[in-house]
Amino acid sequence: MPADSPFVPAAHEPVLVLLEQDAHGLVRPRVADPDVPHLRVTDQGVTRGDGLFETALAVADEAGTLRMRKLRAHLGRLASSATALRLPAPDAAAWEAAVDAGLRAVEAASRPAPGARLSVRLTATRGPEATPGTAPHPTAWVLLTPVPAPDEAERRAGVRVLLLDRGIDSTAPEHAPWLLTGAKTLSYAVNMAALRHARAHGADDVIFTSSDGFLLEGPTSTVLIARHDPDGRRRLLTPLRQKGILAGTSQAVVFAAAHAAGWRLGYGPLIPADLEDVDGIWLASSVRGVLPVRAVDGRETPVDPTLTARLQAWLDADGDPGHHVSGDPVTSDA
Amino acid sequence: MPADSPFVPAAHEPVLVLLEQDAHGLVRPRVADPDVPHLRVTDQGVTRGDGLFETALAVADEAGTLRMRKLRAHLGRLASSATALRLPAPDAAAWEAAVDAGLRAVEAASRPAPGARLSVRLTATRGPEATPGTAPHPTAWVLLTPVPAPDEAERRAGVRVLLLDRGIDSTAPEHAPWLLTGAKTLSYAVNMAALRHARAHGADDVIFTSSDGFLLEGPTSTVLIARHDPDGRRRLLTPLRQKGILAGTSQAVVFAAAHAAGWRLGYGPLIPADLEDVDGIWLASSVRGVLPVRAVDGRETPVDPTLTARLQAWLDADGDPGHHVSGDPVTSDA
Repeated sequence: MPADSPFVPAAHEPVLVLLEQDAHGLVRPRVADPDVPHLRVTDQGVTRGDGLFETALAVADEAGTLRMRKLRAHLGRLASSATALRLPAPDAAAWEAAVDAGLRAVEAASRPAPGARLSVRLTATRGPEATPGTAPHPTAWVLLTPVPAPDEAERRAGVRVLLLDRGIDSTAPEHAPWLLTGAKTLSYAVNMAALRHARAHGADDVIFTSSDGFLLEGPTSTVLIARHDPDGRRRLLTPLRQKGILAGTSQAVVFAAAHAAGWRLGYGPLIPADLEDVDGIWLASSVRGVLPVRAVDGRETPVDPTLTARLQAWLDADGDPGHHVSGDPVTSDA
Repeated sequence: MPADSPFVPAAHEPVLVLLEQDAHGLVRPRVADPDVPHLRVTDQGVTRGDGLFETALAVADEAGTLRMRKLRAHLGRLASSATALRLPAPDAAAWEAAVDAGLRAVEAASRPAPGARLSVRLTATRGPEATPGTAPHPTAWVLLTPVPAPDEAERRAGVRVLLLDRGIDSTAPEHAPWLLTGAKTLSYAVNMAALRHARAHGADDVIFTSSDGFLLEGPTSTVLIARHDPDGRRRLLTPLRQKGILAGTSQAVVFAAAHAAGWRLGYGPLIPADLEDVDGIWLASSVRGVLPVRAVDGRETPVDPTLTARLQAWLDADGDPGHHVSGDPVTSDA
């Protein structure tokens, strides 16, 4: 077909949307075939892991219309990552147009059933290596991939995690912005190696700790902990972001809903002992949702299906996480 | 042109060699055009920085024949990186065939003058994301890019470095193989951010320190230090590899030659104070060579052009680094 013919995706196949600059420098979405190569071997996304990403969930409503969840939160964190990387990524309007083009292309190709789910991955790299001194020309795209319904058996059973040292001292991020600890970069080799290590040692996932002993995050998730305070009130806890972790968009939504439901919140500097004597521990992420932990380093921990369902319902309700994404931590008074 | 026509590179342009599997599963080199896309957006090299690389130097001899320097050392380190990443990368013979195909293609296209230089970058990624359970199918290529003659003005003047905290505790690598500190992975976002930070703060390059205060390495180089021992003998020092750094192939060559010339060697656990009262400090890497440091955190340090020339000549002589690449550290007795 001629190069300028629009690509028409097949039903139930991934859809790719490239963000391309037109002759006037405006960024335009173009639906393209994900099964053919679009990246050069000199792209700094692959030569240096130099770029950023966000992975979101889109769900079809009763009419089969797809909508990306937590749009504002994901685009806000993407902009923060771009600032940390000094990467001139497309702006929010360009990303929204690309996501919209992708969702509409999927609808046209697949007529999604109500509840049908897609992962929506936004990626921007520093672009092909260029002559020193010339402006970088980022490469940016959105990839939409059908994902199956949540694995209810896994959600009931829970996952086994290992606590693995992330090697980073928790005080480093405060004075060392080049460590990019708050940015969601493409340099995930250590995250992937940690997951392989866990799977080779009888576990399913990982909670990282700092070298000075604080709980951090999962390789692709945020940690949530529920417990009762001494006065009997529920409290939802998550590790302190300033210790060098990503601001979790799912954690922010669940926290906002828990607060509205009268729960206390705590962003603690947490240690492994804080995983004991709890009502539940979860790994929260956009596509997998709220996944209960059933064992930490081989020690069983309670799995409460009712609590899991409640947290997942809060996430699915997709309340605007608002100021929780960029707000200050609430100190645990426990 | 038909898809099976061999690509013929233009003179003085980069040459790409893809390592492709034939119908019998054998890996074959194919010369290809680096200016067209060859990677999918789902390649885990870009989605997760999940892959490895080596950057070597090739130089033309008097007859214009190109040879890659430190071939054994680079292929040895590449194999170590593949093991650390559990990545089924092509074997040494396949890489050698691809490098050879690339060098011959450059010779045919450009008839290199004696001393002409190329950077030779070997890259392997975990390949496109596949269905869980299916074997990964790595993507691998060699990119050969002409590089100018060494910048003699820079080599005389030296570079200004900042000491920047790498955030990693030096004891972590011993018990945490998932940190991949000895592997040369594609996840270099922090290395690039550190270089940007240095350049935004009046410096040219970086020497990383561990969070517990040990000297590590540059973002793309190994640190060498020359000094006189109390008895007047020369000593060449480099930070202890076990503290979480790459085994430097250039450092290994220079060390082997220095040893042969009667210098003492030391792989020290070094601290910033070890950068004081020295005869010289260098950043060593394959393409840039041995680059003297003229200032550390704004404090001037001696630049000795005679010493630099000697170290560079040792590197250019390309002696077999042999056991120094994988051997045990020699404890400094200073």
